[in-house]
Amino acid sequence: MDYRGRMARAQEAMGAQGLDWLLVAASADLTYLTGLRMQQGDRLTALLLPATGAGTLLVPALEAAALDQSALPAPLLTWPDGTDPLALIVERLSGAPMVGVSESLWARDLLPLLERLAGTRVTTATPVLRPLRLIKDEAEINLLRRAAQAADRVVERITSVGLEGRTEIEVAGRLNDLLVDEGHDAPAFTIVASGPHGAAPHHEPDRRRIARGDLVVLDFGGTIDGYYSDITRTLAVGELDAERRAAYEAVRAAQESGVQAVQPGTTTGAVDSATRSALERAGYGPYFVHRTGHGLGLEVHEPPYLVSGDETVLQPGMVFSVEPGVYLPGRFGVRIEDIVVVTPDGVERLNTADRALRVAG
Amino acid sequence: MDYRGRMARAQEAMGAQGLDWLLVAASADLTYLTGLRMQQGDRLTALLLPATGAGTLLVPALEAAALDQSALPAPLLTWPDGTDPLALIVERLSGAPMVGVSESLWARDLLPLLERLAGTRVTTATPVLRPLRLIKDEAEINLLRRAAQAADRVVERITSVGLEGRTEIEVAGRLNDLLVDEGHDAPAFTIVASGPHGAAPHHEPDRRRIARGDLVVLDFGGTIDGYYSDITRTLAVGELDAERRAAYEAVRAAQESGVQAVQPGTTTGAVDSATRSALERAGYGPYFVHRTGHGLGLEVHEPPYLVSGDETVLQPGMVFSVEPGVYLPGRFGVRIEDIVVVTPDGVERLNTADRALRVAG
Repeated sequence: MDYRGRMARAQEAMGAQGLDWLLVAASADLTYLTGLRMQQGDRLTALLLPATGAGTLLVPALEAAALDQSALPAPLLTWPDGTDPLALIVERLSGAPMVGVSESLWARDLLPLLERLAGTRVTTATPVLRPLRLIKDEAEINLLRRAAQAADRVVERITSVGLEGRTEIEVAGRLNDLLVDEGHDAPAFTIVASGPHGAAPHHEPDRRRIARGDLVVLDFGGTIDGYYSDITRTLAVGELDAERRAAYEAVRAAQESGVQAVQPGTTTGAVDSATRSALERAGYGPYFVHRTGHGLGLEVHEPPYLVSGDETVLQPGMVFSVEPGVYLPGRFGVRIEDIVVVTPDGVERLNTADRALRVAG
Repeated sequence: MDYRGRMARAQEAMGAQGLDWLLVAASADLTYLTGLRMQQGDRLTALLLPATGAGTLLVPALEAAALDQSALPAPLLTWPDGTDPLALIVERLSGAPMVGVSESLWARDLLPLLERLAGTRVTTATPVLRPLRLIKDEAEINLLRRAAQAADRVVERITSVGLEGRTEIEVAGRLNDLLVDEGHDAPAFTIVASGPHGAAPHHEPDRRRIARGDLVVLDFGGTIDGYYSDITRTLAVGELDAERRAAYEAVRAAQESGVQAVQPGTTTGAVDSATRSALERAGYGPYFVHRTGHGLGLEVHEPPYLVSGDETVLQPGMVFSVEPGVYLPGRFGVRIEDIVVVTPDGVERLNTADRALRVAG
């Protein structure tokens, strides 16, 4: 990845926004700009980037030994345990008229910085960082495609495993193994929501045994070089009754409408509208309880969000999910999700696993 | 867990601090007060707690289906995708003189709240929440003890597995399996740092094969009902040379000094001093590159921090690690870590796995 190029583009955008410094805490934003993968925790890690000139990576001293400094696009400034990392930030940023901070900076750090940077206007770095991260470059799309294809293969393999009689936790464990087996570095999440559990979109797998006649929502993903896969298929266990079959076909048609609506120049809200009105026409409007989709990249949920009324204009290189669902409280759920990329002349599905109703034994 | 009691104690402390409202974002703080286990992500989840009267749990609408509302100590206020959760907060908090926010609230939410709550002083909720979370009650200590004992059993089992010739990743996988096998709900982290990798305190396991003569730092933990274990043992693979043996014995003696220093009324800084001066006397001062320890509970790193100069006074019910180490860049590392609880008359080790130098084949 071209981290120096990304930092240069961020600096260009800072100029346009009038930002003198960017403070990017450990997060996908930091990974995007520097390659550094750390989670925000009790020890502060951050990039300090001036509008011109070199940035500085503020990292806890004990982490430095594990970092390959030659691979990082900015020199390290380490702070030992027991010292105050905010003092190092204040030293550099003090007197700057305007500083942008990344969305994930914690109140723990932001509130004292606001006090200690009196006279500085502290604002969000989102206008700088979001446009960069929204449009994936070729290397990013290649990783997302590889991850999507690996997830597609997991769908094939889990469909041929017998689900009947297994617990959701067992199936989730199998999915985690298959994700790695098919080329992910690590599994990231696995929803296995069978029968009535399918009505909770984010159900946590539990000890329920999957039974004949169930619909089973499988929603899972993993990462390759930090980039996510995320696919949902809903499988039938044995023969379905007519009601479940009808719900399935309605979601399948709505998902198709959503994907067909994706093209440069349209809006995220219009794609949401396409899936939502399809489900409304089929009588499932009140049972589609979430947005149509979310962006995907270094985070499993990131902009753009395909949500009613949102006016974000689709551009080539945007990558997101299209995942309508219907959820009948206490009874069952159906969701079908593919990751797509906006292309110059329309859309490419990164997931191509069969969407026809499939019966898993 | 007595969530209503915890909220009542938080409200008492709010009175003392002059806070009119508490805004607690998804985090261990939220779990502590309500039992709700959610991570902060793209959809805001938070507790709104007034100084008197009932609190409100603001949750994304699509999560509500998976929640057992009868188990929650506050009613839900759900916000559907495409609506603005901050508006619901502003509606309730507007005009309040002083609002405390939890440390993990993101800048994404805090910056617009500061603008939209003009006239309200927004400050940190830490003076309310930290004293509560610092002192573990009996139910919490029981969970931490169970987790620690399970981790002790994992040490026994991994010691009897042959390490020589295995990769660090293989050993990490085995540790993850053993953590669950011995009673954890899930593994949380596993450091396997062999030979020269041991010099990086937070080394990520990789494909290095463990060799005869290595020291191998094993630092791992998992959760039971959300409470963590966290133990480190450093094993010898085959016979060690005199230099490695001497470093091991110095760390072992320093860790013993640290644990012996723990008693009510002393400070976190004094415990740090005990391990640090032991290693300094042995000539390893410059190679002990981190603090002596950290609190443990619903987070794997939480206050109190045992760091040089810190004046936090130890009180019965505090639970933390004592984990000195020495790190020789490019050569090897040693760390020994136990979780301890401060008792009315001294200290109880929750981990009791053997600390004598052990040779794993």
